[in-house]
Amino acid sequence: MNDPYPPHPPLPAVLADVLSVRFGSRFSLSQAVRDQHGRDESVHPAAAPDAVLFAESTAEVAEAVRLCREHKVPVIPFGAGSAVEGHFLAIHGGLCIDLTRMNRVVAIHAEDLDATVQPGVTRKQLNAELHGTGLFFPIDPGADASLGGMAATRASGTNAVRYGTMRENVLGMTVVLANGRIIRTGGRAKKSSAGYDLTRLFIGSEGTLGIITELTVRLYPLPEAISSAVCAFPSVDAAVNTVIQTIQLGVPVARIELLDALTISAVNRYSKTHLHEAPTLFFEFHGSAASVEEQATLVQELAAGLGGMNFEWATRPEDRSRLWQARHDAYFACLQLKPGARAFPTDVCVPISRLAECIRATNDDIARASIPIALFGHVGDGNFHMVLLIDPANPLEVAEAEKINHAVVERALAMEGTCTGEHGIGIGKQKFLVAEHGEGAVDVMRALKHALDPDNLLNPGKILP
Amino acid sequence: MNDPYPPHPPLPAVLADVLSVRFGSRFSLSQAVRDQHGRDESVHPAAAPDAVLFAESTAEVAEAVRLCREHKVPVIPFGAGSAVEGHFLAIHGGLCIDLTRMNRVVAIHAEDLDATVQPGVTRKQLNAELHGTGLFFPIDPGADASLGGMAATRASGTNAVRYGTMRENVLGMTVVLANGRIIRTGGRAKKSSAGYDLTRLFIGSEGTLGIITELTVRLYPLPEAISSAVCAFPSVDAAVNTVIQTIQLGVPVARIELLDALTISAVNRYSKTHLHEAPTLFFEFHGSAASVEEQATLVQELAAGLGGMNFEWATRPEDRSRLWQARHDAYFACLQLKPGARAFPTDVCVPISRLAECIRATNDDIARASIPIALFGHVGDGNFHMVLLIDPANPLEVAEAEKINHAVVERALAMEGTCTGEHGIGIGKQKFLVAEHGEGAVDVMRALKHALDPDNLLNPGKILP
Repeated sequence: MNDPYPPHPPLPAVLADVLSVRFGSRFSLSQAVRDQHGRDESVHPAAAPDAVLFAESTAEVAEAVRLCREHKVPVIPFGAGSAVEGHFLAIHGGLCIDLTRMNRVVAIHAEDLDATVQPGVTRKQLNAELHGTGLFFPIDPGADASLGGMAATRASGTNAVRYGTMRENVLGMTVVLANGRIIRTGGRAKKSSAGYDLTRLFIGSEGTLGIITELTVRLYPLPEAISSAVCAFPSVDAAVNTVIQTIQLGVPVARIELLDALTISAVNRYSKTHLHEAPTLFFEFHGSAASVEEQATLVQELAAGLGGMNFEWATRPEDRSRLWQARHDAYFACLQLKPGARAFPTDVCVPISRLAECIRATNDDIARASIPIALFGHVGDGNFHMVLLIDPANPLEVAEAEKINHAVVERALAMEGTCTGEHGIGIGKQKFLVAEHGEGAVDVMRALKHALDPDNLLNPGKILP
Repeated sequence: MNDPYPPHPPLPAVLADVLSVRFGSRFSLSQAVRDQHGRDESVHPAAAPDAVLFAESTAEVAEAVRLCREHKVPVIPFGAGSAVEGHFLAIHGGLCIDLTRMNRVVAIHAEDLDATVQPGVTRKQLNAELHGTGLFFPIDPGADASLGGMAATRASGTNAVRYGTMRENVLGMTVVLANGRIIRTGGRAKKSSAGYDLTRLFIGSEGTLGIITELTVRLYPLPEAISSAVCAFPSVDAAVNTVIQTIQLGVPVARIELLDALTISAVNRYSKTHLHEAPTLFFEFHGSAASVEEQATLVQELAAGLGGMNFEWATRPEDRSRLWQARHDAYFACLQLKPGARAFPTDVCVPISRLAECIRATNDDIARASIPIALFGHVGDGNFHMVLLIDPANPLEVAEAEKINHAVVERALAMEGTCTGEHGIGIGKQKFLVAEHGEGAVDVMRALKHALDPDNLLNPGKILP
């Protein structure tokens, strides 16, 4: 396979020797290990790092960064590997620092509703370790992503409509800078006006400003009652209008997800469910028993008024789990619609008042397309995805997917939305950065990058072209 | 009066001439106007700017910044003038840009729950203009501050325990940079992963990185039901433990404020209320009628279990207004405890589990002090203030206040808290910045400042020493 990325110098042998002596078998030059760290869930061509270090502490990360800096070698942090925009592809080579062994929950402060974790802790792991505390961590991007990676991409997912994104749910972090210095940002106070918001600066910086080696996240009391529901609609429009009314009325719904008819049919096949193959909303309500009932009644009325059919409840934990597992498997279910295909993802997010219009126009694109396209998403936030199923080796299909993605992004930006609600820029969305933010704001981003990483060694080639 | 700040060169006559010709009577060199823009609500000695410009548009702000830059003259933005840490004192001279004439609500997008405003719009003005939309803007720092100033200091106040701070409630901004360039940050989508979070970088930057000339803020549906209550306690400890239990149970209380006995007695005199002169909590509950009743019942039970007395309800809007007006007047009420005194403010915020311990130790400081000290605050967030009443001309009183403030800040930092929950750093809290964040993080702040304002012309001498 041709390398689609520009050539780069090899890892200096002297650096490899130093790292090898220092870290022993946790430093790997093996092709298999490198390949494993050089491809993500996206259609972007793989790009293996020159070497992989399995770090076990903040101090080790700092040491590796300092060594790489001496040799002007790029450093790329790696979490669960579930990125979809090429975030950790080593397009300029360099050392991949795998953080999965830094997977310890450092402290659970149940009384303060927060926990401090190492970056390799995954969201499911954290929730398992919270078992028995009466608390949970709500941010749920579907994949069992690492919390460090989720912070680095400003992830969100199904619960964000109620609990916010990683932006709202990280109190403070430990970060290794490009010069190898270790800093702490934020703290454990719930709010602070003490200086520049470094925490938010590193959240969403995709490893380009620093490497997150510890983070303190907010926790929430487990709701007294949880109730889930599924409702099919005669049209995507009717489903989306139900969402819009729910949000505008201020119903504190915890999850409100749209799956189009094609996605439902894929889910039925993949997850052995028997859902009505029509545009469908999945709901979840959290609160006291009375509050959940109140929310659910109100939303059911709204849905009925717009033609919602077969409102079905899932209150038993196992039924709820099955439902949300099916939702989380939607991406993989869709992949099965075209055996051997890869998924070209989209991720726009628009103000809620424009959501119906945005999805309607996008459905016209889908109707005209020659490739299968499923649509689903976190519609309570105005965020939806398409999965465009393509053969990456077929340039016509790639071009068609690119064209549709372009059209959807342009539509979202014209509606004051964003090209990426939660996936991040990576390498896939760079071409939209100026269109979304303007040259001036992107120049400010460049100035920040230059101030913190003057040699451009931290995950180079990501976010900023 | 001796000038406590270092001397600085005068405004270049040629710049004054250019500004005068360009802006006519909206450019002022009058001593009265300058003085008015050179003192805030704090004990910090006044420092008048060399001139004041009443700007009327983003383009005018950008033009003035460019002109000042040519002459290396500092620029200081000015909103409602309600800062308490010397934020806008012109300690290095320069041009004050008064933004109060930029007070137009640009757009209300009721269907998207957001509004775009100019920076001089105050929170009360915005809520007045929202009348009839069924929406409100919750952030309420007490003073009728301007929204631009509130964003610049990352303000919060009484409703933050439920609705968050300015950090969570600004979607996007227009900012004039040090080089006069105008940028847009963020957008109107509820979430985005598109690049560095410039919006959060400028929030809390106190005019040192850019001048906010427009902002889009989140709005919320007016709650169907609102209920307020007052409850006196046998001790501050009992009151604080009620707060801690309320937060740990996840009750979505909208406001939960502590006023100590001295504050209540000051409030009774100033606001003609007849509150029991004991440590007291003020509550407010928002939600559906059933949810408000449920929250209130639960909190009343918690309070009763800790010795809360005379739980009194205020459900009529006029009674609620009177109650919260009394709370907002607490600062001014306390000033009357010692005629002619100025208030030396404190503003620590700690993890909720440490709040009782922090306030208990602080009350020991208060008991030993020779000056009157009132304590109140936004205890649901772990944030509280003391008002230390001093004669700024009396060095012994100033020294005592400084010493107590130091002790409280050190205590809060030892508890993983912050030296300022909502007031900001200004000039008053700079000495704590390194103790709170560490040299490394403060160096990153310096690097950001240097990257965006290399000549140190935007509100110089604030935040960073």
